[in-house]
Amino acid sequence: MTLDAVLARIDETLPEAVDRLMELLRIPSVSTDPAYAEACSKAADWLVEDLRALGFDASVRPTPGHPMVVARSEGAGRHILFYGHYDVQPVDPLNLWDRDPFDPELQDGPKGKLIRGRGASDDKGQLMTFLEACRAWKAVHGTLPGNLTIFLEGEEESGSPSLVPFMEENADELRADLALICDTGLFADKPAIVTMLRGLAGDEVTITGPSKDLHSGMYGGLAMNPLRLLTRILGGMFDDQGRITIPGFYDDVRDLPDEIRAQWQGLGFDHAGFLGEVGLSVPAGEQDRTPLEMLWSRPTAEINGLWGGYQGAGSKTVIPSQAHAKLTFRLVPGMDPDKVQELFRDWVRAQVPADCTVSFTPKAGAPASEMAIDDPAFEAARQALSEEWGQPAAFVGCGGSIPIAGHFKTVLGMDAMLIGFGRDDDQIHSPNEKYDLDCFHKGIRSWARVLDRIAG
Amino acid sequence: MTLDAVLARIDETLPEAVDRLMELLRIPSVSTDPAYAEACSKAADWLVEDLRALGFDASVRPTPGHPMVVARSEGAGRHILFYGHYDVQPVDPLNLWDRDPFDPELQDGPKGKLIRGRGASDDKGQLMTFLEACRAWKAVHGTLPGNLTIFLEGEEESGSPSLVPFMEENADELRADLALICDTGLFADKPAIVTMLRGLAGDEVTITGPSKDLHSGMYGGLAMNPLRLLTRILGGMFDDQGRITIPGFYDDVRDLPDEIRAQWQGLGFDHAGFLGEVGLSVPAGEQDRTPLEMLWSRPTAEINGLWGGYQGAGSKTVIPSQAHAKLTFRLVPGMDPDKVQELFRDWVRAQVPADCTVSFTPKAGAPASEMAIDDPAFEAARQALSEEWGQPAAFVGCGGSIPIAGHFKTVLGMDAMLIGFGRDDDQIHSPNEKYDLDCFHKGIRSWARVLDRIAG
Repeated sequence: MTLDAVLARIDETLPEAVDRLMELLRIPSVSTDPAYAEACSKAADWLVEDLRALGFDASVRPTPGHPMVVARSEGAGRHILFYGHYDVQPVDPLNLWDRDPFDPELQDGPKGKLIRGRGASDDKGQLMTFLEACRAWKAVHGTLPGNLTIFLEGEEESGSPSLVPFMEENADELRADLALICDTGLFADKPAIVTMLRGLAGDEVTITGPSKDLHSGMYGGLAMNPLRLLTRILGGMFDDQGRITIPGFYDDVRDLPDEIRAQWQGLGFDHAGFLGEVGLSVPAGEQDRTPLEMLWSRPTAEINGLWGGYQGAGSKTVIPSQAHAKLTFRLVPGMDPDKVQELFRDWVRAQVPADCTVSFTPKAGAPASEMAIDDPAFEAARQALSEEWGQPAAFVGCGGSIPIAGHFKTVLGMDAMLIGFGRDDDQIHSPNEKYDLDCFHKGIRSWARVLDRIAG
Repeated sequence: MTLDAVLARIDETLPEAVDRLMELLRIPSVSTDPAYAEACSKAADWLVEDLRALGFDASVRPTPGHPMVVARSEGAGRHILFYGHYDVQPVDPLNLWDRDPFDPELQDGPKGKLIRGRGASDDKGQLMTFLEACRAWKAVHGTLPGNLTIFLEGEEESGSPSLVPFMEENADELRADLALICDTGLFADKPAIVTMLRGLAGDEVTITGPSKDLHSGMYGGLAMNPLRLLTRILGGMFDDQGRITIPGFYDDVRDLPDEIRAQWQGLGFDHAGFLGEVGLSVPAGEQDRTPLEMLWSRPTAEINGLWGGYQGAGSKTVIPSQAHAKLTFRLVPGMDPDKVQELFRDWVRAQVPADCTVSFTPKAGAPASEMAIDDPAFEAARQALSEEWGQPAAFVGCGGSIPIAGHFKTVLGMDAMLIGFGRDDDQIHSPNEKYDLDCFHKGIRSWARVLDRIAG
């Protein structure tokens, strides 16, 4: 079997793959800091050179910010686009690192060898898993797998300002049948494909009571305090069962398919441990839902900020004129951000007395993403990952948004499979970032298995 | 009748009384600004000189701050202490005055003559009403009325730092049978004696949820947001009828005597106008109470400040670790500040889930004051005022605290009658302070009538 040969090749050449990753990690491509702009270009050049060596038609593509890397290998079968990013987070505080973040090293860790250095996991190590899989494939097959485009970004850690314009300008080139994104992780050490990402709606509410701040002795008891009103309204946003009370809020929420629910149950999510790490223990969402549903498949309403009146030292007997709150709602598939905002506003307005006023400042929203998992590639990839990791892989959710997945959907109309091999303790965005060698190794093997099934 | 003679004397000598007030108003005794310390001493000296001229045994009494003035006239009958203050508010912004604030002038106003100048109403004009009444009394009777102590302060506008220590050190000298305080006003142009002043309890509450700020995508739905918890708790502090829901909160609240309720009804309080001036129209308190009860005889719970999470521009998808609120409670007679604080805390604690914590920072409190209006002097004074002003005077309340009244009660064990003649449009603490000439004139006559009834 040629897959076996590819996997064997991966095993044999792992030291060289690590060396190549080390070389890329030595380039300090911090995208937020203009001092590292040249390093970002250098990383892009390094990748283009490597992709060309692999047989891709690769080029550095300038943007107003750091360059993109686009590489093409035409072939038979579905057109698949792979995404990763070559830029890394800043390294401060430097004194908390055990070595120079850009002088990476293979170290012994508690769970085996690990690669220490900035970008080892996020995202250089991860993007290289795909390139190494292609390399082994080429060595065995003589050709690159299927019909591939590689698309690497250099601004992911600084808000991706050039991404959408670049995708729009190069839509014909970048539009494929399916995207692969390697920027996520294992879930509790189990292989996982993210297929649901929550969306976002947001609003800021200001309630005005009296036309000026009042003395609470002179007016207290007769004049409405907007802080009383705001706490009364927002305090009624959840019922005793943790359910959001805004009328219509759940109308468009879809039920989780039984198959997905079963996969999630198989994940054995340790919600007590997850909450325990931040000092909590009681799941705060809808009490008839599992913790993973609360995080992945149920919408939320969060007060992100609240303020009004006196916040200084001591006390001030004031009835303030205004009270403010910032809120965001995490949305699940089926929900429309504009509709959620309107439901919220109607609900607030209905509770404001005749002599008080309310105003809203809209915040940008985005719908949830739900991948078309009836595409056989998803089940094929799940089987491939299950084989490699020796335990069932799952379609999982993600409580937050991963902007690139949304952009692929909205700009290019592509679904994406988010597959990654990072671990929770990889310290991404923190000092002492690492990538476990077995994640790198099995990550490469995972892509070989996935490509074998979907790029045939 | 000698009272008629005293009143006639007051009418005849009004121009001289105005001249004397003008002289006192020319002394810029701003107590908060050290630059005016000498002026404060000068005002105290001026008053001592005038009191001595009246036949009082008067002296300037040094304090660590501005001096007190104490004057004594022994005589028959109950020992009555009169309180006023000779210091005035700062005058900024000076450009909004129609003339030099310390160059007072008798001007024509829309409702007759008025005395324009800083301190005209608060409190030099008011304290002089009492001294002028004594002067006319002396001219007719040959002696000062009754058994009097005059106690004038020079730090009222700067927090009265020396007041309580001075009262404690000179308690035997200052303790009288009843105090008269002239630092309040008419109520909607009707004569009034303040007999109830609300007290205060305060607290600051901090609720801690997660041990650090969390990302609302990663944790939202599963982790408790302390802002949700705080709004839920404080949002439940009032029921639909405006009643405070803290268990036991009303236990010690006394019913308003029918006689007082009847007097308040007779005041014809224009609550729509009162609220309308600050842009409101709906009485926010207990819906089965009148607006004046809401302001004077019912306790309140006010959120004076509330904060947590992100308050900056744009949005931040954070679940903050902590949420904070500052509250004060206006108390009515019978309520104990410490007990109210404990009831509030118990009520909050009972609503905090097992994995969140709450802490409190106590704020100083003070009980409400309720004067012993069964003392016949109160009814006598009420009759005297009714006669002078040609309409029924009322025992009224005050929603805030007037510290001097509390100090007389707690330090010296004296009840006080708070009688004053200011109008709501006197612009005290603001540019263009004034005192209507008829308030000054009828104020003097009012004291003559009161003294005739209670100092006999």
